[in-house]
Amino acid sequence: MLSPQPTRAGKVGLPPGSLVHVGRRLTEKTGLTLFNYDEQHLEERTIAAVGDAVPRRDRPGVTWLNIDGLQDTGVLAALGEAFGLHPLILEDMLNTDHRPKFEDLGDYLFIVMRVFTLPVHPKGGVHSEQISLVIGPHFLITLQEKAGPLLDPIREGLRAGKGRIRKTGADYLAHAIMDAVVDQYFVVLEALGERIEALEDSLVNRPTPDTLRAIQGLKREITSLRRSVWPLREAISAVDRSDSTLLHEGTGIYFKDVYDHTIQVIDTIETFRDQLAGMLDIYLSSLSNRMNEVMKVLTIIATLFMPLTFIAGIYGMNFKYMPELEWRWGYLGVWVVILLTVAAMLVYFRRKRWLP
Amino acid sequence: MLSPQPTRAGKVGLPPGSLVHVGRRLTEKTGLTLFNYDEQHLEERTIAAVGDAVPRRDRPGVTWLNIDGLQDTGVLAALGEAFGLHPLILEDMLNTDHRPKFEDLGDYLFIVMRVFTLPVHPKGGVHSEQISLVIGPHFLITLQEKAGPLLDPIREGLRAGKGRIRKTGADYLAHAIMDAVVDQYFVVLEALGERIEALEDSLVNRPTPDTLRAIQGLKREITSLRRSVWPLREAISAVDRSDSTLLHEGTGIYFKDVYDHTIQVIDTIETFRDQLAGMLDIYLSSLSNRMNEVMKVLTIIATLFMPLTFIAGIYGMNFKYMPELEWRWGYLGVWVVILLTVAAMLVYFRRKRWLP
Amino acid sequence: MLSPQPTRAGKVGLPPGSLVHVGRRLTEKTGLTLFNYDEQHLEERTIAAVGDAVPRRDRPGVTWLNIDGLQDTGVLAALGEAFGLHPLILEDMLNTDHRPKFEDLGDYLFIVMRVFTLPVHPKGGVHSEQISLVIGPHFLITLQEKAGPLLDPIREGLRAGKGRIRKTGADYLAHAIMDAVVDQYFVVLEALGERIEALEDSLVNRPTPDTLRAIQGLKREITSLRRSVWPLREAISAVDRSDSTLLHEGTGIYFKDVYDHTIQVIDTIETFRDQLAGMLDIYLSSLSNRMNEVMKVLTIIATLFMPLTFIAGIYGMNFKYMPELEWRWGYLGVWVVILLTVAAMLVYFRRKRWLP
Amino acid sequence: MLSPQPTRAGKVGLPPGSLVHVGRRLTEKTGLTLFNYDEQHLEERTIAAVGDAVPRRDRPGVTWLNIDGLQDTGVLAALGEAFGLHPLILEDMLNTDHRPKFEDLGDYLFIVMRVFTLPVHPKGGVHSEQISLVIGPHFLITLQEKAGPLLDPIREGLRAGKGRIRKTGADYLAHAIMDAVVDQYFVVLEALGERIEALEDSLVNRPTPDTLRAIQGLKREITSLRRSVWPLREAISAVDRSDSTLLHEGTGIYFKDVYDHTIQVIDTIETFRDQLAGMLDIYLSSLSNRMNEVMKVLTIIATLFMPLTFIAGIYGMNFKYMPELEWRWGYLGVWVVILLTVAAMLVYFRRKRWLP
Amino acid sequence: MLSPQPTRAGKVGLPPGSLVHVGRRLTEKTGLTLFNYDEQHLEERTIAAVGDAVPRRDRPGVTWLNIDGLQDTGVLAALGEAFGLHPLILEDMLNTDHRPKFEDLGDYLFIVMRVFTLPVHPKGGVHSEQISLVIGPHFLITLQEKAGPLLDPIREGLRAGKGRIRKTGADYLAHAIMDAVVDQYFVVLEALGERIEALEDSLVNRPTPDTLRAIQGLKREITSLRRSVWPLREAISAVDRSDSTLLHEGTGIYFKDVYDHTIQVIDTIETFRDQLAGMLDIYLSSLSNRMNEVMKVLTIIATLFMPLTFIAGIYGMNFKYMPELEWRWGYLGVWVVILLTVAAMLVYFRRKRWLP
Repeated sequence: MLSPQPTRAGKVGLPPGSLVHVGRRLTEKTGLTLFNYDEQHLEERTIAAVGDAVPRRDRPGVTWLNIDGLQDTGVLAALGEAFGLHPLILEDMLNTDHRPKFEDLGDYLFIVMRVFTLPVHPKGGVHSEQISLVIGPHFLITLQEKAGPLLDPIREGLRAGKGRIRKTGADYLAHAIMDAVVDQYFVVLEALGERIEALEDSLVNRPTPDTLRAIQGLKREITSLRRSVWPLREAISAVDRSDSTLLHEGTGIYFKDVYDHTIQVIDTIETFRDQLAGMLDIYLSSLSNRMNEVMKVLTIIATLFMPLTFIAGIYGMNFKYMPELEWRWGYLGVWVVILLTVAAMLVYFRRKRWLP
Repeated sequence: MLSPQPTRAGKVGLPPGSLVHVGRRLTEKTGLTLFNYDEQHLEERTIAAVGDAVPRRDRPGVTWLNIDGLQDTGVLAALGEAFGLHPLILEDMLNTDHRPKFEDLGDYLFIVMRVFTLPVHPKGGVHSEQISLVIGPHFLITLQEKAGPLLDPIREGLRAGKGRIRKTGADYLAHAIMDAVVDQYFVVLEALGERIEALEDSLVNRPTPDTLRAIQGLKREITSLRRSVWPLREAISAVDRSDSTLLHEGTGIYFKDVYDHTIQVIDTIETFRDQLAGMLDIYLSSLSNRMNEVMKVLTIIATLFMPLTFIAGIYGMNFKYMPELEWRWGYLGVWVVILLTVAAMLVYFRRKRWLP
Repeated sequence: MLSPQPTRAGKVGLPPGSLVHVGRRLTEKTGLTLFNYDEQHLEERTIAAVGDAVPRRDRPGVTWLNIDGLQDTGVLAALGEAFGLHPLILEDMLNTDHRPKFEDLGDYLFIVMRVFTLPVHPKGGVHSEQISLVIGPHFLITLQEKAGPLLDPIREGLRAGKGRIRKTGADYLAHAIMDAVVDQYFVVLEALGERIEALEDSLVNRPTPDTLRAIQGLKREITSLRRSVWPLREAISAVDRSDSTLLHEGTGIYFKDVYDHTIQVIDTIETFRDQLAGMLDIYLSSLSNRMNEVMKVLTIIATLFMPLTFIAGIYGMNFKYMPELEWRWGYLGVWVVILLTVAAMLVYFRRKRWLP
Repeated sequence: MLSPQPTRAGKVGLPPGSLVHVGRRLTEKTGLTLFNYDEQHLEERTIAAVGDAVPRRDRPGVTWLNIDGLQDTGVLAALGEAFGLHPLILEDMLNTDHRPKFEDLGDYLFIVMRVFTLPVHPKGGVHSEQISLVIGPHFLITLQEKAGPLLDPIREGLRAGKGRIRKTGADYLAHAIMDAVVDQYFVVLEALGERIEALEDSLVNRPTPDTLRAIQGLKREITSLRRSVWPLREAISAVDRSDSTLLHEGTGIYFKDVYDHTIQVIDTIETFRDQLAGMLDIYLSSLSNRMNEVMKVLTIIATLFMPLTFIAGIYGMNFKYMPELEWRWGYLGVWVVILLTVAAMLVYFRRKRWLP
Repeated sequence: MLSPQPTRAGKVGLPPGSLVHVGRRLTEKTGLTLFNYDEQHLEERTIAAVGDAVPRRDRPGVTWLNIDGLQDTGVLAALGEAFGLHPLILEDMLNTDHRPKFEDLGDYLFIVMRVFTLPVHPKGGVHSEQISLVIGPHFLITLQEKAGPLLDPIREGLRAGKGRIRKTGADYLAHAIMDAVVDQYFVVLEALGERIEALEDSLVNRPTPDTLRAIQGLKREITSLRRSVWPLREAISAVDRSDSTLLHEGTGIYFKDVYDHTIQVIDTIETFRDQLAGMLDIYLSSLSNRMNEVMKVLTIIATLFMPLTFIAGIYGMNFKYMPELEWRWGYLGVWVVILLTVAAMLVYFRRKRWLP
């Protein structure tokens, strides 16, 4: 939960707005890419410093600056200066275990979301990282913890120039990115759904203490998703209700659409939680069932053999005067008694439905 | 939950408003039927293309276009063009695992609902599909995943021309369809109620691990209904509160009536959930009870025969000087001791109320 | 829950406002009684048809029409026509498993409540039926599923002419009836409270699987009361907040009083629910306790006699060279060992606090 | 819960506002005391009839009429007449199991609270009674079920004439009384907290079925407190938000202070509930632990002695040709085998960590 | 919970606003330190009496008076007089188990928070104390129960004179202190997180009743944190929404930032609660698992040896005519039967998967 490296606790005593990276540090270099486009033209380039983005920002059309990797706090300081961002916003960008939120700062809007990605190993935990968006009048800044394929389809869309994306403003581009993030939740949920189904099968066939641990593990993954999606829902709803002039009227329905998807993600998460709770009940009652079965075997064996051993014990006594011992058919008689006893027991057990 | 075929996860990377069918694909051909009516006349016909509906839409009276089957995305594209629907609305129609909702788009209203139908096999799961409604000034569009008997009574009512239906607008027709959908919930709930009762009987008579699985299965059906009805309630309440001019004043009370029915559905669902939770408690405690019974049998047997076997063992010892062995009535005496012991045990067990 | 006779599901396909009786049909004939009163005079009569009430309605003073029994839908149709009631209101009156509600229809107010009555047999289930009220400017209509003594005290009060009832309008009369219905809840709750107490005693003295079933049964009764009282609270609160001119200013405090009583009913219900939940915990832990006791007896017996049987078994061996067998005091020695072993065991058990 | 004497159910059929005492009847005589004070003077006397209070009420300064004991409904009727109180208010005063509430009746304010007092016997249940307050422009009426020391410190304060109390109006006096009532909750909670701690100790040392019953008993006490404090919080919050001219501006902060104390009472109650729930978990798991321990003893004994008894049994057989029996060291050899078996078992048990 | 020394219950009967210290009394002497600063200059001194602070308060710049230790109620009385604080505010400062709150008193704002600190011993309980803030137009008063290092970084920041702190008003200083308090929560949560992880390991390896008690202990710590953070969230949110002129416009975003941190604290707390609940489930099911294992051993042993002992018992009988006893290979035959029985049992157990 709380990683040993830079944590919130390590920031105690620093003034607010201090740029210290909080969260896991991912070691790649910071990368900056810039898009500038309108309906007619598109320029795409990698830039070396945030300052290089400023002249483009002032050109007509929409400017999209994407920053991958947060380890260079100098980049963020430059970003704050170039785009006039509040120090607390920069701090929120670096604090990569921030919960999703939306904030309207007048000149620009700030959105924090969490991206979930599937692990490379099929049994590994779901990986999550933070993405921050700053929506300005004609520009959009996105910050990711590390470069990834998440935004590639949007870049493709921009290059292809089809659909609404090149005809609309920075707010529509922001929507497209938020939509991509939420779509990613469906991918992760589908994978978790498959794990749950596999677990359900193994629960029916052969429950072990490992099954319990696997249920608890999945529960934790689901809970961690849940803790990201509920505030995301609030944040998108706040975008939807916002009366900021940075959001054009026609974009509202698109944010409403992302909101609907978030609700659907929440519904699926709640369904999974219910399923896992039901699996716990099945697991616990299957423990009881197995105990019942073991106990029945023990009881059947003891009930069968204890009386027989007693009978044998009787005729192992060494009394001088035990007339049965002298009888010609005594031994055979004992066997008859034994077999009758066994038969009576079996009838009793069958009546109790203890025999399979 | 998440079907292997086209799922939400498969849409990752596509721009919003892309018409891709999400959900189970049902293989029938798309069918289009058109009603045009007012108080005096009624026209009913099957049309080949959405475009054929446009001239009727502009005629006086109410025009109802019903579309069965969503596999032909071309039909939807044509629909969007002919009636001026937003691409996201078309996307919502195709995304057939959408949660119920109501949206006011100014020129038209959009409603999504889920229809539940009973399975053909008495033990099968409840089947659910999506129905979408677009309410325009003088027209209504309905989309179903596949043709079914759900709307037949409404068609009959239109043909018969009795009651309010022919005298009122598209909003009343929409209400009639929503009412039919909600009435269908009562049918499904009644069937589930019967299953719960049957399960309750088998729980009392002979609980097995299968009972538990059946309880969990019913719980899941109920939960899935629940996840559809709660947002439906919100949606209908939003219709009720809406100040859209597309809804006439006199129709409000009818939507309020559907709302009441939805609340009643929710009440029944919550009652069923309580009942199933109570059944789980009974199941678990009946496991404990059975264990108790098994243990009592074991304890009675062991407590009866262990002392007896010990007594027999004593007189099976081979000591040279064991005076009892020589006694004339020794053997008989042992039997007397044994019978007295048994009698004492039985009195003890009866006092403990362990004997039936 | 869902009775086999006319249910909601049986209405599928009928247009809204169709007058079909939904719920248990009670076989008595429909009875109509009419009161017309003001401070000076009182007229009371049984009438044959709803139409006979109309001339009285237009006379000065308050007119109260009470209808017992709903099986004659013709009466309801006539009622609708005579008093100008909306078809959906008539439908709600017939749909006798309706949840409590309040509706303001401008010209009149409509209230649905549930009346609970104690069973004739002391172990039977609580019986519930529906009562509907229509409050008009100078008239009140009440509908009950069957005639009963519920409203007799109010009739007595009217005849006696004491207190406020003859000096005030139809709204105060409606309040008096609602108050009588809520008072009835206290009667039922008191009886259920006695059953809970009796159950608690039997739980302490001798819990059986029947106790569990009785707890679950009471839980279901309480839940069914609860599902009626919560919406009733909402409905009365809506009456209280209503700004309808049909409710006089001075009556507000009386509705507030009924509201307070409803809250008190809810409080008692929640207390009972808590008590029943606590009883379930006690029941389950008492199962565990009894198992513990049984196991202790088994363990004590086995631990006492297994070593002894082993000792006896040793000296039952037939080895040629077993010096102890020849000893003069061997047999006595074995008995000494046995008694010492038993004494040691008893000390051990007492230290473990396993002996009573 | 519901006492056998006059209960709500016994009032069925009476018109609202009928003065019947509901709740336990406490047998002392009704006592009336009157205070009339302002900054300069203070008059304190016992009066015989409510009517004697009227001339004082109209004198300058604040008049406080305290009534102890409710059995004489004539006193209440006189009170209603003298001070112009609504019959329903008088009914609420007599209905002594009323939940706390605040009502603004324009000319006066009405507040109902519950006072909790510790039992005389250290194990007895917490006792609760009702106190009602009527705040008028220059007077305050308080009604208690029976005389008690609760208000003595306030009387002392009035006599001493220090602090704000003599300089302020009837609303401040009402606040002082409400504060005294809420302070009393802390006394009761402290006593319950000590009982919980004592129970926790006995839970750790030696859990018995009585412990469970004690937990349930405390839970019930806490729940009953809770049911009084939550509505009290609402009531005081309503006082705080009230815009009645009977409450002076400067008194607001004092009611806010009482509100804060009520919240603190609620916090403590919730903490106790959590603690009791945790104790239930510990109790149930300690039952399982004890069962485990008993089972281990049984298993160890059986596992040790069953193989040994079998070995002894083998050499107790009477076969003619059993070479071991003839061996010189056979008997000793058997003992060696037995001791080796025991040693192996003990190693096995220690590896399983079953031995202490 | 409720300490034996001065508690709320001990204040019963005192008028509101009485200055009595409620809570643990910490024995150090009261210490007063004073800061007076603006962008250019900074004065820092220890003062002997509250009165000494008054002349500084009226100087330009911001005056910060910090009071450590509350045992001298005279200091508080002087404080109230010097700064015009309401007696109830002074009482809240002394009542050191107050829940966090924010109050706007017009001339000044009052904030109560709880500071959590780690124990000196690694297994000790988390320690909590109260800090109160009074924000005036140009001054800030802080009160702590005892001197501690919490505010040292802020003092350092003031001395260093970097950042915003010297350029802004008393509200920003108050924010910095609140931020420091909330940062402290992260430190405590990190330590608790480590304890939870350690507990989780021991749960997997070797669960004991102590583990359960440790889980319950951690739960209680988390709950106590939770009860402080939820009202803190409300309080900070109230600061954020406040329209007091004592809060400058630019400070709003800083309070919003503290609010975000509080939400993050709450998220972590809820995660821990979920984890602890999951651990309880694992613990209880591991008890069942261990019982199952013990029972299997017992059943295997009994099932193996009971039939064998019976066989041996048969041939220990002393019947005169037992032909097997005379057979040459009888003894060997019995051994063959025994070994076959054992083999059959082992196959059976392996099929049941009871053998490891």
